Amino acid sequence: MRVSHLFTKTLKNAPADEVAKNAQLLIRAGFVYKEMAGVYAYLPLGLRVLENIKAIVREEMNAIDSNELIMTTLQRKEVWEKTTRWSDEVVDVWFKTRLKDDTELGLGWSHEEPIVEMMKQYIHSYRDLPVSLYQFQPKMRNELRAKSGIMRGREFIMKDMYSFHASKEDLDAYYEKVIEAYKRVYDRLGIGGDTYVTFASGGAFTKFSHEFQTICEAGEDVIYLHREKNIAINEEVLDDAVVELGITREELEPVKTAESGNIFNFGSQKTDEMGLYYTDAEGKQQSLYIGSYGIGITRAMGVIAEKMSDEKGLVWPKSIAPYHVYLVSIGDVDEEATKLYGELKAAGITVLFDDRDERPGAKFSDAELIGLPYRVTISRRLLDEGKLELTYRATGETEVLTPSEVLAKIAEM
Amino acid sequence: MRVSHLFTKTLKNAPADEVAKNAQLLIRAGFVYKEMAGVYAYLPLGLRVLENIKAIVREEMNAIDSNELIMTTLQRKEVWEKTTRWSDEVVDVWFKTRLKDDTELGLGWSHEEPIVEMMKQYIHSYRDLPVSLYQFQPKMRNELRAKSGIMRGREFIMKDMYSFHASKEDLDAYYEKVIEAYKRVYDRLGIGGDTYVTFASGGAFTKFSHEFQTICEAGEDVIYLHREKNIAINEEVLDDAVVELGITREELEPVKTAESGNIFNFGSQKTDEMGLYYTDAEGKQQSLYIGSYGIGITRAMGVIAEKMSDEKGLVWPKSIAPYHVYLVSIGDVDEEATKLYGELKAAGITVLFDDRDERPGAKFSDAELIGLPYRVTISRRLLDEGKLELTYRATGETEVLTPSEVLAKIAEM
Repeated sequence: MRVSHLFTKTLKNAPADEVAKNAQLLIRAGFVYKEMAGVYAYLPLGLRVLENIKAIVREEMNAIDSNELIMTTLQRKEVWEKTTRWSDEVVDVWFKTRLKDDTELGLGWSHEEPIVEMMKQYIHSYRDLPVSLYQFQPKMRNELRAKSGIMRGREFIMKDMYSFHASKEDLDAYYEKVIEAYKRVYDRLGIGGDTYVTFASGGAFTKFSHEFQTICEAGEDVIYLHREKNIAINEEVLDDAVVELGITREELEPVKTAESGNIFNFGSQKTDEMGLYYTDAEGKQQSLYIGSYGIGITRAMGVIAEKMSDEKGLVWPKSIAPYHVYLVSIGDVDEEATKLYGELKAAGITVLFDDRDERPGAKFSDAELIGLPYRVTISRRLLDEGKLELTYRATGETEVLTPSEVLAKIAEM
Repeated sequence: MRVSHLFTKTLKNAPADEVAKNAQLLIRAGFVYKEMAGVYAYLPLGLRVLENIKAIVREEMNAIDSNELIMTTLQRKEVWEKTTRWSDEVVDVWFKTRLKDDTELGLGWSHEEPIVEMMKQYIHSYRDLPVSLYQFQPKMRNELRAKSGIMRGREFIMKDMYSFHASKEDLDAYYEKVIEAYKRVYDRLGIGGDTYVTFASGGAFTKFSHEFQTICEAGEDVIYLHREKNIAINEEVLDDAVVELGITREELEPVKTAESGNIFNFGSQKTDEMGLYYTDAEGKQQSLYIGSYGIGITRAMGVIAEKMSDEKGLVWPKSIAPYHVYLVSIGDVDEEATKLYGELKAAGITVLFDDRDERPGAKFSDAELIGLPYRVTISRRLLDEGKLELTYRATGETEVLTPSEVLAKIAEM
């Protein structure tokens, strides 16, 4: 993509009402546009990051035999009344609306009840189990406050997954597989080292559920961390968990975190409430066991923007960067720069080519704000030596290399 | 994908309240699930069709230099008040909701006003023009009636595109490019021959806008067609258009159609109303010219389901079929069938492998209902002869061929 074809511009300032660092940087760099507090549009650069994150999550969910589908934002009241969760007193983040005939509808803040309801059509016998489903769904949550940029949206993208099992043991085994799949996701997103499987409050069925908490100054949570034993505990279950795990509170270090994911073992509570059962090999009706597993896609992007950034701008990991290379041409080298642009693309490297008639300083500072992993600079002086400049955004380090060396360096990382 | 891993089942009957053929077939074949009238979830097979349609549209919009982004469902009242279109009397399909502090919000039924508002941040000078943007956005429309299945949704996916120009001439030229791009889209979707660029009512700026109308018995529109001259006219502008085009009403044949797309030249009306201008080379403020261009993605899927189906089920064109091949194994040939499944996939052919322990008749009728372009049958008897059976869904024709002949036949179409 040529910068001259990109309609977004880098901005000197974010809107005055935007207090979150992630949104400030993403707005200034042209990745997102603020529609209102907690509601952001994703511009071409931002959409590419989202799609890259989704592609990683999709691969890992497919690898544990989950099926992708897409449910709806408009939801029926009757489905949620089966579990009492239609009530605004029980669920305080509902957006609701009405059909012309005054029928009340909800806007999906979760899809647990609608998925269970739908599966009555597809699960009848033990032969239909296990099943795992997931989607990337825009969720709507009527948050009272939304001051954390894209880390807490009123409208946001979530990967939510649901699995259905004939027994508690089968659910437990799948639940462990999901934990491993989630770890691979966070590793690939570049935040694996700072993301902890954290004990959190369970439900009627299990003592604990699990959250994936990522260390982040801008996070809204606090976890208690035993770095040596790799144990993390959410504040709300701290007293119970230390007893259970045989550690003392003094060994734990409180750190600020953002909840990047959560997994929840429902047991058979929700399916029993909603009347979803299966027939076993002997023809007897049995309870179904389900789990629910979420990853906040837009939140992950926000957490990464918070953690991987410096005073100059964003610093994307290669796995989700909108493009790998920011190509800067200096002076009258249009022909050579265009040829290099083509060669990089032919090598499978994605490129944002700053072909604008701008001074080098402006191009360099845009490169830093946008934060692609590599900057490649081409100029007459460098060309005369048969060289290019390769600059690493993360370290600021620059090397003067031949074009083939540049290609090799970028390919190997 | 193995059918044994697909959680959807083909159903004997669609829900009793489903009157549209497209939705009846898509529900029975396991492509969609009806959440409520006009609101459908897309199951794994249906999602694959949608993504294939989107991929075609994306390629053609990128080819005319449009940038993909994604706006938001939640929209601000103030933005729509600038053009009077917040009013339920002016726009009768609004769904509205409220924030906790009682601020009214709209759910996006269109994104014209929000896009124009957003572009105030990015368009200042003639150097910033032209710009074209598009998105695949779930739209919400509070339709009084929703009886056409996925052809008229209360929640549906639309590709909406907006272009911004410094002059009327530049907009007109782009408008023509969009017409050509849309023709390529409908050709690739397999409905090009039945889709007509149709004169429809314009706005303050142009006498006519254009719709893309596809001949379809289940459509809600009627157009007047001059097949010989390839002219199509919407009922509402019939009197004006015949005069303009120098034809008589008697030469025209009324046909039932579905509106598969529309393009609209706004001139500078909306940008003037909303206060979006640019500065020309002499530093003077000038009006901006914009066009708006839509393709109903879910509607296109519905139109194709209506048109390309028979009494046995769906008949997908290869370009958007969820998989190319329905592989049927008969009897105890698991090992050979699994090997063939791998070979087809290795050749870049997508396969739905019916590995179930079911009688051949049940597999064949599911193959016909689901409607993939090719069925490949493998059995002991065929293997003994070194052959496979290749059946074409569209014609029902069957050939007995060697495996390499089967691969060649599928690859060439």
